[in-house]
Amino acid sequence: MADGEAVQLGARQSTLRASNLGLVLRTVCAADAPPSRADVAARTGMTRATAARLVDGLVAGGLLVEGERDPLPRRGRPGTPLLPGGRVAALGLQVDAGLLAARVLDLRGRVVAERLVDGDWVGSDPGPTLERLGRLAADVLRDLAGRVRLAGAGLALPGIVDADRGVLLRAPNLGWHDLRPADVLAPHLPDGLDPVLGNEADLAARTVAETAPGRPGPHPDFLYVSGQIGVGGAVVLDGRVMRGSAGWAGEVGHVCVDPDGPPCRCGSTGCLEQYAGRHALLAAAGLPRDASPGQLLDNAATGDPSARAALDGARRALAIALAGVLNVLDIPTVVLGGHLGGLAAELGPGLEDGLAARVLSARWRRPRLEAAAPDAAPAATGAALRALADVLADPVRWLD
Amino acid sequence: MADGEAVQLGARQSTLRASNLGLVLRTVCAADAPPSRADVAARTGMTRATAARLVDGLVAGGLLVEGERDPLPRRGRPGTPLLPGGRVAALGLQVDAGLLAARVLDLRGRVVAERLVDGDWVGSDPGPTLERLGRLAADVLRDLAGRVRLAGAGLALPGIVDADRGVLLRAPNLGWHDLRPADVLAPHLPDGLDPVLGNEADLAARTVAETAPGRPGPHPDFLYVSGQIGVGGAVVLDGRVMRGSAGWAGEVGHVCVDPDGPPCRCGSTGCLEQYAGRHALLAAAGLPRDASPGQLLDNAATGDPSARAALDGARRALAIALAGVLNVLDIPTVVLGGHLGGLAAELGPGLEDGLAARVLSARWRRPRLEAAAPDAAPAATGAALRALADVLADPVRWLD
Repeated sequence: MADGEAVQLGARQSTLRASNLGLVLRTVCAADAPPSRADVAARTGMTRATAARLVDGLVAGGLLVEGERDPLPRRGRPGTPLLPGGRVAALGLQVDAGLLAARVLDLRGRVVAERLVDGDWVGSDPGPTLERLGRLAADVLRDLAGRVRLAGAGLALPGIVDADRGVLLRAPNLGWHDLRPADVLAPHLPDGLDPVLGNEADLAARTVAETAPGRPGPHPDFLYVSGQIGVGGAVVLDGRVMRGSAGWAGEVGHVCVDPDGPPCRCGSTGCLEQYAGRHALLAAAGLPRDASPGQLLDNAATGDPSARAALDGARRALAIALAGVLNVLDIPTVVLGGHLGGLAAELGPGLEDGLAARVLSARWRRPRLEAAAPDAAPAATGAALRALADVLADPVRWLD
Repeated sequence: MADGEAVQLGARQSTLRASNLGLVLRTVCAADAPPSRADVAARTGMTRATAARLVDGLVAGGLLVEGERDPLPRRGRPGTPLLPGGRVAALGLQVDAGLLAARVLDLRGRVVAERLVDGDWVGSDPGPTLERLGRLAADVLRDLAGRVRLAGAGLALPGIVDADRGVLLRAPNLGWHDLRPADVLAPHLPDGLDPVLGNEADLAARTVAETAPGRPGPHPDFLYVSGQIGVGGAVVLDGRVMRGSAGWAGEVGHVCVDPDGPPCRCGSTGCLEQYAGRHALLAAAGLPRDASPGQLLDNAATGDPSARAALDGARRALAIALAGVLNVLDIPTVVLGGHLGGLAAELGPGLEDGLAARVLSARWRRPRLEAAAPDAAPAATGAALRALADVLADPVRWLD
């Protein structure tokens, strides 16, 4: 080995323990059932001694905890089951046109505290709204009374953000643009806890990609469609939400379904959200905009023609728009969230047929639809998951 | 350092020289101007001695060559410029509905031999067509008379392929499906040279992503739209062609532009290729299907209403379909290839306006259109580039 190579290797060795600690933590987090130290060794390719030493370091730092041994082990000597610890957690915030949320998620994926407030923030004043969110966050953290160490925070917004600069560029349904939420939130949060901004659908999609911090969900690749006042979306490839060049990928709500269709807030015409967004659907069904998707389904079930027409229109528009996306991305699965998740059982069968008719590869692999698990604030959870991913990537600083 | 970690490091050291040889080769290939050994050291972070030793190994193996020193160096001691060698090359084959191509590309990106044959292979018999391609390949290799070492081969096909199994699943315009081209090609090729199958548009997009083997093109992220009899496409993210779950991504030609539009061969209706594919455009302009895009432009220039209407329809359809793709992928650049590249000057300005009106992020970053460099067989070059990428990834086996 040449001298220069030796120097490079020396530098690598100094970070090896840090990188192996991360590997062990991620291995435990990813497991479906709590693994033992021996399981960790087998899954990481480390010796048992090395794996055990690293596990001990993580247990001492509270990032892992030891569960109870199975009193009736089936074979061999029982190993102590390892679980992610509940000491490190993250704060997820969400502003939606109909909801403010502050939620704390621990490393095991449990919601350890939350406050959700329903309301109507369409065309709202950002200052007082963010003040209110800040107070919710302070309340949630006060509830926890220092029982967790906050690894970070995130804020989900229904619009286009510049995460690097912490700026919301435009959230059309809120009527907000060009503002820095941290300026209003900071006084309510612990020093240095600066929420990272993210798009609502991108963060909600994380909860499907990752069922708990570091634990992969059922599909590595899927399109997430977020039914809001409008329609948002996110593309997940290999378990990761696609950012795109500027972090604005996934805007499936503005795929054109019919160029001669109704005008959209975005300036275009016939966008998907003009057929499948909550306001558009309810309007087409002759319901007030604060009606629930359940009412729409009830009306359709009793044969109300406008409710049925609204659902048919949404189904047709979703088939056209989503088929285009599937043709371009070659993704087999669509997960419907928000109000579209609630309508999935009604929309699903016909929509799958519509996709099969328009997706080029459907004859080899039929597209599949699923509903996301019902949750009022999945993007708040996603914002916390994003912050916890930093801990899994480099746990050393949480061990001091 | 624990024992287990030492064992792991030992294994890493044994591959360090191989990985550093690849790094040096890729550094030279990526450079816009031929670098010296000192430049390579600076760009890789190696010591000069290490870099020089690795360069010497690559020069001895023919993967790098030394150029002439600048006789009038501007400052300091002149370094010998290093260039990729011409000894290792790859064979790129292409079957298109209107073209058969066999082309050999060397590591410097030069076409060192090629044979192209025009014809009409719409609805053709695959056996004789692939026989003819095999003879073209044999002719090209005979021309080279052993002057290059073939690192690999690729075959570009206008359809959906299963590259792992070497099977063309379906090429609608050729009328081919479910066949293994290698079965016919093998007798014409050197032993063991098994062409890797790829989609035509995916491989053509590589020639935009990589202007020579390992040298990045002007855009890391772009959508490539391939104007063929129909319309193909590829998504390039961070310099790499997006595969999708099964390798079928990029089918922008089957994005729906108008649900009430004409039926498409794919079984859907109103697909982009029914407006912007070559056959559709020429038919709309009242021209025979073997007419050239140049004739269409000439007719439009003399005010022929059907030619103008055909171009207007293509422009409108492209704006609708591509805007949807840009909204979902957050890509700023569209590169038009094939006949659409030839029409880019005519379609471009209006199409950019159409995209700006429909792309949500256009107010922050206006979408841009470009034409690919004219070339009858870019996918053949792309197939060779793909094979040469294997050399750049692991050059050691080419040094023996």
